[in-house]
Amino acid sequence: MTDSTDRVKAALRAQRIETPSWAYGNSGTRFKVFTQLGVPRTPFEKIDDAAQVHALTGVAPTVALHIPWDAVDDYRALADHAAERGVALGAINSNVFQDDDYKLGSVTNPDPRVRRKATDHLLDCVAIMDKTGSRDLKLWFSDGLNYPGQDNLARRQDRLSEALREVYDRLGDDQRMLIEYKLFEPAFYATDIPDWGTAFAHCLELGPKAQVVIDTGHHAPGTNIEFIVSFLARAKRLGAFDFNSRFYADDDLMVGSADPFQLFRIMHEIVRADALRPEAGIAFMLDQCHNIEPKIPAIIRSVLNVQEATAKALLVDADALAAAQDSGDVLESNAVLMDAYNTDVRPLLAELRQDMGLDPEPMAAYRRSGYAERIAADRVGGEAAGWGA
Amino acid sequence: MTDSTDRVKAALRAQRIETPSWAYGNSGTRFKVFTQLGVPRTPFEKIDDAAQVHALTGVAPTVALHIPWDAVDDYRALADHAAERGVALGAINSNVFQDDDYKLGSVTNPDPRVRRKATDHLLDCVAIMDKTGSRDLKLWFSDGLNYPGQDNLARRQDRLSEALREVYDRLGDDQRMLIEYKLFEPAFYATDIPDWGTAFAHCLELGPKAQVVIDTGHHAPGTNIEFIVSFLARAKRLGAFDFNSRFYADDDLMVGSADPFQLFRIMHEIVRADALRPEAGIAFMLDQCHNIEPKIPAIIRSVLNVQEATAKALLVDADALAAAQDSGDVLESNAVLMDAYNTDVRPLLAELRQDMGLDPEPMAAYRRSGYAERIAADRVGGEAAGWGA
Amino acid sequence: MTDSTDRVKAALRAQRIETPSWAYGNSGTRFKVFTQLGVPRTPFEKIDDAAQVHALTGVAPTVALHIPWDAVDDYRALADHAAERGVALGAINSNVFQDDDYKLGSVTNPDPRVRRKATDHLLDCVAIMDKTGSRDLKLWFSDGLNYPGQDNLARRQDRLSEALREVYDRLGDDQRMLIEYKLFEPAFYATDIPDWGTAFAHCLELGPKAQVVIDTGHHAPGTNIEFIVSFLARAKRLGAFDFNSRFYADDDLMVGSADPFQLFRIMHEIVRADALRPEAGIAFMLDQCHNIEPKIPAIIRSVLNVQEATAKALLVDADALAAAQDSGDVLESNAVLMDAYNTDVRPLLAELRQDMGLDPEPMAAYRRSGYAERIAADRVGGEAAGWGA
Amino acid sequence: MTDSTDRVKAALRAQRIETPSWAYGNSGTRFKVFTQLGVPRTPFEKIDDAAQVHALTGVAPTVALHIPWDAVDDYRALADHAAERGVALGAINSNVFQDDDYKLGSVTNPDPRVRRKATDHLLDCVAIMDKTGSRDLKLWFSDGLNYPGQDNLARRQDRLSEALREVYDRLGDDQRMLIEYKLFEPAFYATDIPDWGTAFAHCLELGPKAQVVIDTGHHAPGTNIEFIVSFLARAKRLGAFDFNSRFYADDDLMVGSADPFQLFRIMHEIVRADALRPEAGIAFMLDQCHNIEPKIPAIIRSVLNVQEATAKALLVDADALAAAQDSGDVLESNAVLMDAYNTDVRPLLAELRQDMGLDPEPMAAYRRSGYAERIAADRVGGEAAGWGA
Repeated sequence: MTDSTDRVKAALRAQRIETPSWAYGNSGTRFKVFTQLGVPRTPFEKIDDAAQVHALTGVAPTVALHIPWDAVDDYRALADHAAERGVALGAINSNVFQDDDYKLGSVTNPDPRVRRKATDHLLDCVAIMDKTGSRDLKLWFSDGLNYPGQDNLARRQDRLSEALREVYDRLGDDQRMLIEYKLFEPAFYATDIPDWGTAFAHCLELGPKAQVVIDTGHHAPGTNIEFIVSFLARAKRLGAFDFNSRFYADDDLMVGSADPFQLFRIMHEIVRADALRPEAGIAFMLDQCHNIEPKIPAIIRSVLNVQEATAKALLVDADALAAAQDSGDVLESNAVLMDAYNTDVRPLLAELRQDMGLDPEPMAAYRRSGYAERIAADRVGGEAAGWGA
Repeated sequence: MTDSTDRVKAALRAQRIETPSWAYGNSGTRFKVFTQLGVPRTPFEKIDDAAQVHALTGVAPTVALHIPWDAVDDYRALADHAAERGVALGAINSNVFQDDDYKLGSVTNPDPRVRRKATDHLLDCVAIMDKTGSRDLKLWFSDGLNYPGQDNLARRQDRLSEALREVYDRLGDDQRMLIEYKLFEPAFYATDIPDWGTAFAHCLELGPKAQVVIDTGHHAPGTNIEFIVSFLARAKRLGAFDFNSRFYADDDLMVGSADPFQLFRIMHEIVRADALRPEAGIAFMLDQCHNIEPKIPAIIRSVLNVQEATAKALLVDADALAAAQDSGDVLESNAVLMDAYNTDVRPLLAELRQDMGLDPEPMAAYRRSGYAERIAADRVGGEAAGWGA
Repeated sequence: MTDSTDRVKAALRAQRIETPSWAYGNSGTRFKVFTQLGVPRTPFEKIDDAAQVHALTGVAPTVALHIPWDAVDDYRALADHAAERGVALGAINSNVFQDDDYKLGSVTNPDPRVRRKATDHLLDCVAIMDKTGSRDLKLWFSDGLNYPGQDNLARRQDRLSEALREVYDRLGDDQRMLIEYKLFEPAFYATDIPDWGTAFAHCLELGPKAQVVIDTGHHAPGTNIEFIVSFLARAKRLGAFDFNSRFYADDDLMVGSADPFQLFRIMHEIVRADALRPEAGIAFMLDQCHNIEPKIPAIIRSVLNVQEATAKALLVDADALAAAQDSGDVLESNAVLMDAYNTDVRPLLAELRQDMGLDPEPMAAYRRSGYAERIAADRVGGEAAGWGA
Repeated sequence: MTDSTDRVKAALRAQRIETPSWAYGNSGTRFKVFTQLGVPRTPFEKIDDAAQVHALTGVAPTVALHIPWDAVDDYRALADHAAERGVALGAINSNVFQDDDYKLGSVTNPDPRVRRKATDHLLDCVAIMDKTGSRDLKLWFSDGLNYPGQDNLARRQDRLSEALREVYDRLGDDQRMLIEYKLFEPAFYATDIPDWGTAFAHCLELGPKAQVVIDTGHHAPGTNIEFIVSFLARAKRLGAFDFNSRFYADDDLMVGSADPFQLFRIMHEIVRADALRPEAGIAFMLDQCHNIEPKIPAIIRSVLNVQEATAKALLVDADALAAAQDSGDVLESNAVLMDAYNTDVRPLLAELRQDMGLDPEPMAAYRRSGYAERIAADRVGGEAAGWGA
C-alpha cells in the first residue's frame, strides 16, 4: 500500500454523509405516491433505517430531521434512540409549505399573520436544535409566485430579509443557518430564493453563521454546479450539499445516477479546496425521493456513489494537474482529471470497508441481512410516514 | 363594421374550446394540495361548473372527462345532466397512472398482467365513449423509467405498439385516438412517448384515426411549438391541443399567462392552415391545474386568453404577410405579424359577446353572479374532487 | 389629455436608450457573415447611422463604442463628429477576446504576461473614457474553459479579482465599472463570470462604482430575468442593460421580438423601482447583431420595442396592483398587470412623437428618407466594419 | 482470456469511426478563430492528418469530406492519396450555408433561383460521390428563420420536401441520403429540420435510402438521446452519428468529454440493437471543432473515448440485465448497467491495440512521433484550411 493510497483511505474513512429521515418514508410525484412495504411509521423507525445504512456503510452516522414530520414530544428520547442504534441526530429542516396558510407564501406572504406564523415555526426549530444538539438549521422556502404581477418581488425580499434576521439573531453560538435556493417548484413563475446569488446575498447581509446550501437538483439546465461549489468555497459561504440526481427538474433521484461525472467534478472542487474534512464545516447530505425503488438499498447505493466519486476526486494527481494547467496544456489538464475519473475505485473501497470491519459489499450485505423482510413483516398497521404524513 | 371584422367575428363565434372536468377539482404539486371552498364533489358538480364557464363565455360547450375520476354508473344520466345545463360531454381521458400496479408502467410494464389490466382500462374507455357519444379517446401514458437500465427502451416500444393497436382496432367509425406526448414527469430518465416524433410514428403505424395531441407544457426548453403545430397540421395528424402555460416544466398554469406571444404564434399557424373551423377536426382543449387561484374564474380567464390570441391571429393581414415573405423582407414580414399581435382585441371581443347576448366582461359577470358564494355555501360535506379522488 | 397620460408621456420623453456602434457593422454566426450594402467602414460612419436612429426616434442620443473596433487617433474629433450629428459618445466597451493571446483567457489566463496585457487594455479604455467623457466602462470577459480540468476555477477568480481591483482603482470620480455576466459562449464548459451572483459578488468586493450589467440573452433557460432586475435594483447594483432577444442561447436578435411580455415585465420592475429616470443611473443599452435584416431599421424597430414595453409598464395601475397583491387576490393582481400589457400603446407613442416634432412612424419615415439608398451608394470601397474588423 | 473478452475484443477490432476533414482545419466561435500551427492547407493535407489518426488508433479508416471545402479537380487523385496513406474517403457533406445567396435559406428559400442553386449543389455532391465511391450523402441544412413571421413554415416544408425528392431520385443503388436535424443555430427562431421527428418524417416519405443522422450536440436541454437512438434503430432509420460533446448548445467539443455516461448509454443502445457491426449500416462519425486544443491529438482522444464507451457497453451483462428488467428490479437493473460503466476498460483496450500491432497508448505515441513538430515546420505559407476556407 502506497502513501498515496493511505492518504486517500484516511480521507474516505473520515468522510461523513448525512441521510434524511424523509427519504425513508413514502414519497411520489403530484400524480401518485406508490406505496411500499415496511415503510417507517414514526421518527423512531426512520432512525432505525438510517442506522441500518450507517451500519453497512460506516460513513452515514447522522440523520437529518424534518419538522413537523419528525416532531416528537421528547427529543431527548429520540436522540437516545439514535445513539443506541449507533447514529446521531443531524440538521433540523424546517417546513413552512404544507399548511393551507402558506398558499401564497410563508415568510414572504403578503399577510403579516402568516409571516408571523412562519417565522415562529422557524424559531421553534431553533428551540428543537437546542434540545437535539443539532448544529444546522436548514431553510428551504417554497415561497414564490405562479403568475406575473401576483405579488411585489422586491417587497417579498424585504419580508424574507426581516424573517431571516429574526431567526439568525436567535441562533446560538454553535448554530448555523443554511439557506437553500431552488429554481422553481412548487412556485412556477418566480421563486423568492431562486439561485445561489440570492441565497449568498442574504447570507452576507446576515453574518458568518449564515451559509448557502447547494441542492444538486435545483438549477436551470446548463448550470455549471461545480463552479458554484468552487465560488462559494472560496468565499467561505458553502455550508452544505443536498445531494441527489436529476435529468430534467428537481427529480430527486439517487445521487450519481444521472451524471456521475458531474458528481466527480463537484467532489474534485471540494477536494481541491481542502473542504472534505469535517472541520471545514460543509455538511454532505442526501435529499432524495425513492418513489419506485426500495428506499433503504437506494440510500445505501447513494452513499456508495458519493464515496466512489470522492475516491476518484482524491486520486486526481494534483501536482500533475497544476503543472498542466499552468502550462496551458488543455488536453493534458483534461487527461489528468479523466485519468482519475476513469479509475475503477470499487476495489479500493472494498478494501477500506474491510479495514473498517465492514462487509466489502454493502448492497449484498443488506440483501442478505433480512432487514427488508423483517420491516415488511413488522411494520403493519399504523400509517406509513411520508411527505406531509 | 367592415367585411374583415365580420369574418373575424364569425370565426370567433364558431370557435370551440373544451374545458376539462379535472380543472374544476383540487390539484396541487407534490408538496401540497391547497384546499379551496366550493370545489365539486361529483362529476355532476364539475359539469355544473363547466356549464357556468360556457354560459359566460359562449365558446366552451363541452367538458372532457377523466376515467376513473369521472366514472359514474349511468353515463346517460351524466350526459342528460350536461345537456340540461347547456353543455355536452367531450373527450374521454384514460388514466393508467394512479394504481399501485402501474409503478413500473402501464401498457409498457414488463409484467404482462399489468399490461393486460391497462389495455383493458383503455378498452373500457372506448365502451364509455360509445355511451357518451364522445368522439375522442385521449391517451396520456406516464410510462417511463427513472434510472438508466431500468428497462429495455425498445421492448417498451413494442409493448406500447401492441396495446395501441388493440385499442385502435376497437374504435368505432366516428371515434379517434389522440396520442399525447410529454418530455418528462412523472418518469424522470426516459418517457415512452417523450416527443411529437414518437407519437407521430405510432399514429402513422396505426392508421388515420390516430392523431397527435400537443400539450403546450410538454416540451423541452427552447422547443418551437408552432413549428410542430404547422408540421402536424400539414401532415394531417394534429388531433388536439391541451392548452396551458409553463415557465419551466409542465406547470399547468392558465394558458396565455406565461407567454402570450407564443400562444398567438400557435393560433397564427392554426389560422394559416385553415384549421380553426370545427370541421378541421382539431379539438382545442384546456389542461390546467389551478392550485392557488380560484378555479372557475381561472378557467374563464383561460378561455378569454385563447379567444384573444385567436382574434389577433385572425387579424393578421395574410396577403401582406405573404407578399413580404415572398420578397424576402424580414423586417416587414415580422412587422405584419406584430401589427396584429399588438392590436388590443378586447373591444372587438366585447362587441362579439354582446352580439351573442352575453355580458361583454365575463370575469366581472362571474364575480357579480354570486356563483362562487353559492357553491361555497352548498358544497359542504362529502369529499372535494381532485386528482386521484 | 389626462394627468396620467401626461405623466406617462413625460417619462417616455425622458427615456434614454443607447445604441451600440457594433450593431451598425457586419456580424454573423460562426457559420457565415452575410454581407450587406451600405455598412459603415469607420467609427465616424457608425456614428452617422446612430445619429439617424436618434433623429427618427428622439430617444437614442448616445452611442456605445467598442475598443479596439472603434479606436481612433483623435477621440475629440470623434466626439465632435457625434455632436455635429446630434448625438454623443456613450459607454466604452473593452475587448479582450479577439487576440490570439486570449485563447485561454484574458485577465484569468494562466500566463501572467497575457493577464498583464489584458489589464493594460482595460486601463487604456479608462484613458479613452477620460478623453470621450464617457461615464461607463463596460466589461465583458469571454474567459472560461472548454474542458473540465482545463484550469483551476478558484485561481481564475483570484486573477479576475486582482485585475478588476487594479482597473477599479484607476476609475475617476464620475466613472463606473459595469460588469457583465454570461452563461456560456465562447467558453463552453465554464465561464468565469457565468451569472449575476458572480458579477454581484465582485461588485460588492470592489466598491460602489462597480455595478452589474444584465444582458437579456445571457441566462440559462427558465431564468426569471425580472427577478434579477428587481433584486439588483433593490440592492442598488443594477448598472445597465444590454437589451436583445433570444429564443435559445445568446441569439442577439431585436429586443422585444422573441418574448415581448418578458420585456414588459422587466420594464415593469424598472418602473416599480422608480429606476427609469436617467438620474437613477441605469443605462439602457442595446446589444444586438443584425445578421440577416438591414441594420438601421432593425435598430429603429428595437428602440420602438423598448419604448412600447416602457409605455405599457408606465400604464400599470400601481395602486390597484398593490391593493390586489396585498389582499392576496392572485387573479386580480395578474389582471391588473395584463390590462396594461394588452393595451395598444402605439397611438400614444405616435402622439408623443408628434409632440416632439418627430414623424409619428419612424420606420416609415426611415424608408422614405432615402438614407439606406444613400449609404449603399456612398459607402463603396474600403472594408465594411464588423466584429473583429 | 475468456470467451467473453474475445467477443468484446473482436467487436472493438471491427469498429469503424469516421473522422471529418474539417476538424483538422481551423474553427472557432463567432467571436474569434484562434490560429494554430501546422494546420492543413489543402484537402490532401487533411487526409494526411486523418491517416495519422488511423495509424495510431487502428479504427478510423475513413475521412468525411465537405464540399466545397474539400472540392478538388481530381477526386481520383484524392482517393489515391488517401489509399496511399492507408485510409479511404467517406461520406460527402454538402454545404449550402456559406454563400450570400443563402441568407434566407437554401432549399427552403422563398426565392426559386436560390432553391435551384442549392439543389444543384446537392446533385453535384452526388456526382462527386460517384467519383469517390462514397456511400453516404450527409445533408445538414442551416435553413430557418430568425423572426416570427419571417416566412411560411409550412411552405418551407413543401420546398424542402421537393428538393429532397429530386436529390433522392438521383441517388445510385448503393448510395444513401443521411438527413441531419438541429435544434437551432444559425437560425434562432425556427429551423426547418429542428428535431428527429421532422427528419424521420421526411425519410419515411422519401424511401428506404433516406436515413436520420443523430448529431449528439443538436438537441434541446433534457432530451434523452439514447431514446432516439433506440427508437430509430428499431425503426431501421438510424443512418449515422455525428459524435461530439456539449454542455449547453452545439459546442462541438470532443465526444465523451462532457457527459461520458451519456455516450456509454448511447453505445449501450447500439450494442443492444446489435447495430455496432459495420453491416448494420450505421456510420459512426465525429463532428467536432477543436478551437483551443491541438486538433490531431484531440481527434485521437475522441476516437479513444468512443472506443472506451463501446467497450463498456460491450461488457454489459445482457442476460443479467434482461433478468433484472423482467423481474421489475429497478435497483438491480441499474446496477448491472453501472457495473459495466464503472469498469476501467483502458487495460483491455491497451491489450487490443497490442494485438493489432499498435502502440497501446496512442496519445503518448502521437506525442513521441514528432508529427506535430513536423507539420508545424512544413506547413508554412499558403492559407490554413478552415470553416469557409
